[in-house]
Amino acid sequence: DFLNALHEIIPAFGASTDNLERCRLNGIVDCGERHKHIHKRAMLLVEQVRVSKGSPLVTCLLEGPSGSGKTAMAATIGIESEFPYVKIISAETMIGLSESSKCAQIVKVFEDAYKSQLSIVILDDIERLLEYVAIGPRFSNLISQTLMVLLKRLPPKGKNILVIGTTSEVGFLESLGICDAFSVTYHVPTLQTEGAKKVLEALDVFDEDDIDTAAEALNNMPLKKLYMLVEMAAQGAEGGSSEAIYSGREKIDINHFFDCLGDIISVR
Amino acid sequence: DFLNALHEIIPAFGASTDNLERCRLNGIVDCGERHKHIHKRAMLLVEQVRVSKGSPLVTCLLEGPSGSGKTAMAATIGIESEFPYVKIISAETMIGLSESSKCAQIVKVFEDAYKSQLSIVILDDIERLLEYVAIGPRFSNLISQTLMVLLKRLPPKGKNILVIGTTSEVGFLESLGICDAFSVTYHVPTLQTEGAKKVLEALDVFDEDDIDTAAEALNNMPLKKLYMLVEMAAQGAEGGSSEAIYSGREKIDINHFFDCLGDIISVR
Amino acid sequence: DFLNALHEIIPAFGASTDNLERCRLNGIVDCGERHKHIHKRAMLLVEQVRVSKGSPLVTCLLEGPSGSGKTAMAATIGIESEFPYVKIISAETMIGLSESSKCAQIVKVFEDAYKSQLSIVILDDIERLLEYVAIGPRFSNLISQTLMVLLKRLPPKGKNILVIGTTSEVGFLESLGICDAFSVTYHVPTLQTEGAKKVLEALDVFDEDDIDTAAEALNNMPLKKLYMLVEMAAQGAEGGSSEAIYSGREKIDINHFFDCLGDIISVR
Amino acid sequence: DFLNALHEIIPAFGASTDNLERCRLNGIVDCGERHKHIHKRAMLLVEQVRVSKGSPLVTCLLEGPSGSGKTAMAATIGIESEFPYVKIISAETMIGLSESSKCAQIVKVFEDAYKSQLSIVILDDIERLLEYVAIGPRFSNLISQTLMVLLKRLPPKGKNILVIGTTSEVGFLESLGICDAFSVTYHVPTLQTEGAKKVLEALDVFDEDDIDTAAEALNNMPLKKLYMLVEMAAQGAEGGSSEAIYSGREKIDINHFFDCLGDIISVR
Amino acid sequence: DFLNALHEIIPAFGASTDNLERCRLNGIVDCGERHKHIHKRAMLLVEQVRVSKGSPLVTCLLEGPSGSGKTAMAATIGIESEFPYVKIISAETMIGLSESSKCAQIVKVFEDAYKSQLSIVILDDIERLLEYVAIGPRFSNLISQTLMVLLKRLPPKGKNILVIGTTSEVGFLESLGICDAFSVTYHVPTLQTEGAKKVLEALDVFDEDDIDTAAEALNNMPLKKLYMLVEMAAQGAEGGSSEAIYSGREKIDINHFFDCLGDIISVR
Amino acid sequence: DFLNALHEIIPAFGASTDNLERCRLNGIVDCGERHKHIHKRAMLLVEQVRVSKGSPLVTCLLEGPSGSGKTAMAATIGIESEFPYVKIISAETMIGLSESSKCAQIVKVFEDAYKSQLSIVILDDIERLLEYVAIGPRFSNLISQTLMVLLKRLPPKGKNILVIGTTSEVGFLESLGICDAFSVTYHVPTLQTEGAKKVLEALDVFDEDDIDTAAEALNNMPLKKLYMLVEMAAQGAEGGSSEAIYSGREKIDINHFFDCLGDIISVR
Ligand SMILES: Nc1ncnc2c1ncn2[C@@H]1O[C@H](COP(=O)(O)OP(=O)(O)OP(=O)(O)O)[C@@H](O)[C@H]1O
Ligand SMILES: Nc1ncnc2c1ncn2[C@@H]1O[C@H](COP(=O)(O)OP(=O)(O)OP(=O)(O)O)[C@@H](O)[C@H]1O
Ligand SMILES: Nc1ncnc2c1ncn2[C@@H]1O[C@H](COP(=O)(O)OP(=O)(O)OP(=O)(O)O)[C@@H](O)[C@H]1O
Ligand SMILES: Nc1ncnc2c1ncn2[C@@H]1O[C@H](COP(=O)(O)OP(=O)(O)OP(=O)(O)O)[C@@H](O)[C@H]1O
Ligand SMILES: Nc1ncnc2c1ncn2[C@@H]1O[C@H](COP(=O)(O)OP(=O)(O)OP(=O)(O)O)[C@@H](O)[C@H]1O
Ligand SMILES: Nc1ncnc2c1ncn2[C@@H]1O[C@H](COP(=O)(O)OP(=O)(O)OP(=O)(O)O)[C@@H](O)[C@H]1O
Ligand SMILES: [Mg+2]
Ligand SMILES: [Mg+2]
Ligand SMILES: [Mg+2]
Ligand SMILES: [Mg+2]
Ligand SMILES: [Mg+2]
Ligand SMILES: [Mg+2]
Repeated sequence: DFLNALHEIIPAFGASTDNLERCRLNGIVDCGERHKHIHKRAMLLVEQVRVSKGSPLVTCLLEGPSGSGKTAMAATIGIESEFPYVKIISAETMIGLSESSKCAQIVKVFEDAYKSQLSIVILDDIERLLEYVAIGPRFSNLISQTLMVLLKRLPPKGKNILVIGTTSEVGFLESLGICDAFSVTYHVPTLQTEGAKKVLEALDVFDEDDIDTAAEALNNMPLKKLYMLVEMAAQGAEGGSSEAIYSGREKIDINHFFDCLGDIISVR
Repeated sequence: DFLNALHEIIPAFGASTDNLERCRLNGIVDCGERHKHIHKRAMLLVEQVRVSKGSPLVTCLLEGPSGSGKTAMAATIGIESEFPYVKIISAETMIGLSESSKCAQIVKVFEDAYKSQLSIVILDDIERLLEYVAIGPRFSNLISQTLMVLLKRLPPKGKNILVIGTTSEVGFLESLGICDAFSVTYHVPTLQTEGAKKVLEALDVFDEDDIDTAAEALNNMPLKKLYMLVEMAAQGAEGGSSEAIYSGREKIDINHFFDCLGDIISVR
Repeated sequence: DFLNALHEIIPAFGASTDNLERCRLNGIVDCGERHKHIHKRAMLLVEQVRVSKGSPLVTCLLEGPSGSGKTAMAATIGIESEFPYVKIISAETMIGLSESSKCAQIVKVFEDAYKSQLSIVILDDIERLLEYVAIGPRFSNLISQTLMVLLKRLPPKGKNILVIGTTSEVGFLESLGICDAFSVTYHVPTLQTEGAKKVLEALDVFDEDDIDTAAEALNNMPLKKLYMLVEMAAQGAEGGSSEAIYSGREKIDINHFFDCLGDIISVR
Repeated sequence: DFLNALHEIIPAFGASTDNLERCRLNGIVDCGERHKHIHKRAMLLVEQVRVSKGSPLVTCLLEGPSGSGKTAMAATIGIESEFPYVKIISAETMIGLSESSKCAQIVKVFEDAYKSQLSIVILDDIERLLEYVAIGPRFSNLISQTLMVLLKRLPPKGKNILVIGTTSEVGFLESLGICDAFSVTYHVPTLQTEGAKKVLEALDVFDEDDIDTAAEALNNMPLKKLYMLVEMAAQGAEGGSSEAIYSGREKIDINHFFDCLGDIISVR
Repeated sequence: DFLNALHEIIPAFGASTDNLERCRLNGIVDCGERHKHIHKRAMLLVEQVRVSKGSPLVTCLLEGPSGSGKTAMAATIGIESEFPYVKIISAETMIGLSESSKCAQIVKVFEDAYKSQLSIVILDDIERLLEYVAIGPRFSNLISQTLMVLLKRLPPKGKNILVIGTTSEVGFLESLGICDAFSVTYHVPTLQTEGAKKVLEALDVFDEDDIDTAAEALNNMPLKKLYMLVEMAAQGAEGGSSEAIYSGREKIDINHFFDCLGDIISVR
Repeated sequence: DFLNALHEIIPAFGASTDNLERCRLNGIVDCGERHKHIHKRAMLLVEQVRVSKGSPLVTCLLEGPSGSGKTAMAATIGIESEFPYVKIISAETMIGLSESSKCAQIVKVFEDAYKSQLSIVILDDIERLLEYVAIGPRFSNLISQTLMVLLKRLPPKGKNILVIGTTSEVGFLESLGICDAFSVTYHVPTLQTEGAKKVLEALDVFDEDDIDTAAEALNNMPLKKLYMLVEMAAQGAEGGSSEAIYSGREKIDINHFFDCLGDIISVR
């Protein structure tokens, strides 16, 4: 089954920079110290892999709440590494495939990576790759076993590889034993008031006077939800105001902003 | 399996307005503030998707007790949006299909939607799409994973999409993690006395004097059950009176109405 | 699988009156108020479906202990409705079939019903259709999902349908959420002393003096067990007396009757 | 699957008297009141089926500890009924078959029975037919459902059938709901001292003086174990004495008998 | 599946004496009273089967801790019986086969046995035949059911059979109900000091003075572990001494013996 | 399935010394007494197998925390034995294969080993071969049964075999009963301060003054993590310093070393 699946895979994997750019829909802005720190450390791992003698395989896990910026961070590291081979493995491109086909796809990416002297493989949303669901819990043990072996298997002599994983279900990965399989793990947090303020300043859609109030209300908000919330608020209570706001002619009404925040928070 | 299923699907999805209309068997009447509020907010999301720059994908969940009006609400939003592509994905059209065929059907609708610049996809009765049953509990993880990925996957550049889900098992969706995958969630409640009264007035089948008594007894009743109950009561205790009532010649006997209410309540 | 199953089904479903008659092996006699009440209410639903404007689909569940008369009641409603299409869906005709074949059979009956302007479909012994067993518990979720969708799916415009379900495992159906899917539910009870007496009088196999004693002992007995018990007792302690009793020449010996009752009660 | 299985079955079922005789390896001897009582009552059921008007289907369960004589009893009833069709359904003839093949075999026997005006079907060791094992517990729900339907399904008009089941796992059958499906249930017990004495007297292998001591030690022993124990003891402590004993030249040494009893009891 | 498997089996089962001899790698020596007692009793069962009239099927289970000598004992009985057909059914010859193939192999051995007037079938390591693992627990119910039926099924008239089972998981077999299916069960224990001493004397690798100390330390040790331990100790602390020891030129160093014992005990 | 799998295996197993060398990426250095002791004892087992008369099969398990040096130790024993046949069975070469294919691969290695007079088979990371995951727990019972049988099955006459297993999940193996199947088990521990110091001295990348501080901080660290940590630290806080350090021109900054240690410890 798996072997067939392996043969059927067309090497559709070319340069993926384009692919990686789409992971940063809202760009990369300064959003606080912790995000900067992780970025710096991760770039040191890139360096270690580039010059490595004794550790041809380095693995690093980015974990944190949904929307905190893990995928954008991993993509950024991949882009900035300038390694000849950088690929992202994501559930999006494998919807509906059988476990063994997914498994074959994943193995294929690693096999391709082993052909490059320097490579980065991003395992995005590992819990989704594993088809994890909290009820049961259920997940694909076939894929889980595959990842555990791949995270430990050395590339051929002379080839060096950096594997970056992302997850918002670190507790689950720990109980699988997958966390232990990574050399290092970094926690990517939600925003603090200070970080939120920086992001809002960069967006420039609030009145100077409102920006602190808004930032405070956004303490503990994940980056991605913040962007969604701002866009909702920009429509205005009666609709139609977004163009004026993005062109800078108007600012977001702080009351309507809090209404929208209420709608969003009730779901968390 | 899934791939075959994908190919076998005939693009039977044309304009679906007709389809959507059938979701509002009893029309749309004023039934209280909450229903109006949700309708207004949802139409703002439609607007956001239409003019969106930064959020090409907006997702919204309507949850509430069985019969509270979720499907009719979603259909109404779809109709009023006047988007070129509006489709409803419902278990009714997929009875007896295998998990992977259902999965392929769902994916197909999204793929079609991605071809339209503006589109709305309604995931009706998500627990039924997931083949959920409380005992176990059991459900299709294949479909659940598919939905979780689709609710996060961006449409191609330049295409914008609004996804509306409905469910009467919000607790189950929460434990799956599907609730978190939606940008916003709105609770669609049963009727309050006041709302019930409005509906009864619109129907005009009760005596003026009986209408308040009836409305009070209907506090906390879902819309759909109300319509069923009225029609039962309209038969009269001995049958045969419904024509007279709907033509306005007679009114519903309030005692028989309470008898029928008793029959129906015992099952809740 | 399901699709194949669907095609293989030969439309062996013609007029089924004969079929329905066999469900009333011991005829229909007066056995108490509750049975009469249910019968009357159910006939009102038949009426509602016949003249319906706003509710083309009405669903009704008869639940009660094993042998209390549910199937005979449903069959009687079907026969008396004089609707052009009346079918009973029963596990008896689907022994050993796979889940998907059963599912296809069920769907087929509904599809056929949709072609008739007025129709009744009887889902007999729903727990058996679902292959329910208390250990586990286990059951067919495929069939359960199918029923839940069918109980909610509207027939085509202009067609009206009444669905009657029977079950002796109402607690199980409730935990599945199938009970909620029915518009109304009626509880069909075991016999009270009074009802038992009426049945015994109709049978006329006891001495006048014994009939009250016997009826009292039969308090809380299901109808079907009563008939079995009487026939056992009619053999006499040494056999051979049944002809004399049914021809009216002899009466059942009350002591032997109590012996047989003891044998039967020990199993309940 | 099931349908194929049904077609493949060769009607290897002819007259089975020979078959039934093998179920009484040690013959039928008087072993106490309870066994006699059950036998008599069961023969009344045979009579009831023969002359039946209103109950064309009678079902009876013999339950009791392993080796208590259930199968021999059922076989005896079958033989003495002199019905044209008497079959025993036993796991012995279906070793290693798939669930659906077993199911088909069982259905086949019933279909054959329906062709005879009077018939008896023995479901021997129902827990074994169901592939029951206490761990889990596990069992075949396919076969369990089949039995539940067959135990309720009426034969065609004019045909009468008696179904006799045997089991040593009555608690399990009860939790399945199979017990309730039988019209009557009889408990077949282990031997009491008195019954054991009768059996030993019939065998005539003990000294007059030893027979009471032996019978007392056998209180609560199942019939089948008793026969095995006597044969073990008949070998003598050093072997070689069995011929002398069975020919009546010698008697069993009571001490050696107690040694053997010790070996056997340790396993219960 | 099973039927195919049955046909594919090549009757590779000829005379198996050679096979049985390999089960006694270290021969059979006197190792205490219990082992002798079981051997004697088992030989009486052989006798019973040979002369049997009323019990053509005798079944006997040898249970005890891992390595206590069960398989060697069963093989010895088989060899000494001099029955024309003696076979051992062991998981070793069925590695990797499917459940149904294993099942077919087992059935085949019994069918072959039924052709011989006198036969012995050894079911070695029943828990392994059942693919038992304590976690879950898991095991093959197909094989378990097959064994339960085979342990009860009578051979054809005129054929007599003795079935010997071995297991080190008697608790598991009890919960399956397989223990009850055996006529008798014997417990094969680990060694007592006295038995260990006899074995060591027979091996003659210790100094007279050390033998009691060593035997005492071996109290409660299974036979097979004892043989492994002695061979380990015979290498000497620095290796190379085994030849001298087995040729009798040197004796085992008692201190090194205790070191090895420590290594081995830590694993128990 | 298994049989097919067996045939499809190409005997890709030639001399594997190269293979074994790759298991010791950082060579073998002196790292404390316990590692030395295990090595010595294991070499005695090699000797025992070489000269064995009575125990043609010796089995030994190396268990200990992840990264403690088990695989490198097993490979070293294999290399130093100079046996003609030494193979390592590892999950790395069987990614994505079905259970039965893995099973066939494993059996094949043993069959090949049986052809050599002296052989060593290494079962590396047994929990990975078993596809073990703590959640559930889940694992392959097919492979588990195969290993249990192979660990007990004697090689053909005249052939001797040593089986070495490694695992970091000894508790799991114990609950399977696999631990008991090994003749001896050795615990391979993490480093003590003293051992860590020896390793750091051999690496020569710290200042004399820092080495004790560093070693103390490394108490309880597995060997493999130590090597990864040192390489991380060698990059320096700003990157680019590793060449200077490995060439001996600079030493690792002890503060940066502690920073890296912090990153790594947080994941344990
Ligand atoms: N400094 C930053 N780091 C990361 N993301 C940033 C930063 N600045 C802006 N962003 C934007 O924030 C968003 C982060 O979303 P992203 O998808 O990376 O989150 P995530 O943690 O992967 O979410 P999920 O858990 O749902 O997968 C992106 O749109 C990205 O463009
Ligand atoms: N303002 C309103 N909003 C929603 N539905 C309305 C409104 N006014 C009347 N209706 C009628 O009420 C009924 C609501 O039923 P609907 O099927 O939408 O409920 P639902 O919540 O989807 O039920 P279910 O949980 O069973 O799927 C429809 O027949 C609709 O025509
Ligand atoms: N008034 C009555 N209502 C229903 N059944 C009656 C009535 N009078 C007589 N009977 C007889 O009583 C018996 C009722 O059996 P029926 O099979 O309907 O019970 P049931 O509740 O469906 O049992 P089960 O739970 O086993 O399916 C039938 O033989 C029927 O002929
Ligand atoms: N009066 C009797 N009734 C039943 N069996 C008797 C009687 N007298 C002697 N026997 C003998 O006792 C034995 C009873 O064994 P039988 O196989 O019927 O027991 P069982 O209850 O079916 O056992 P199991 O639970 O193992 O299936 C038979 O060998 C039968 O010949
Ligand atoms: N009197 C004896 N009885 C049994 N075995 C003996 C005796 N004397 C010596 N032995 C030897 O002891 C060993 C017993 O091992 P055996 O394989 O029979 O144990 P086992 O109980 O079957 O173990 P396992 O539980 O692992 O299957 C054999 O090598 C056998 O040659
Ligand atoms: N004396 C030694 N013993 C073992 N390994 C050593 C020794 N000295 C150095 N090493 C190095 O330490 C590392 C040990 O890693 P190894 O893969 O053997 O650990 P492991 O216990 O098998 O880990 P895992 O549990 O992840 O399989 C190897 O790189 C090896 O070269
Ligand atoms: Mg992400
Ligand atoms: Mg709805
Ligand atoms: Mg019924
Ligand atoms: Mg029996
Ligand atoms: Mg053994
Ligand atoms: Mg290792």
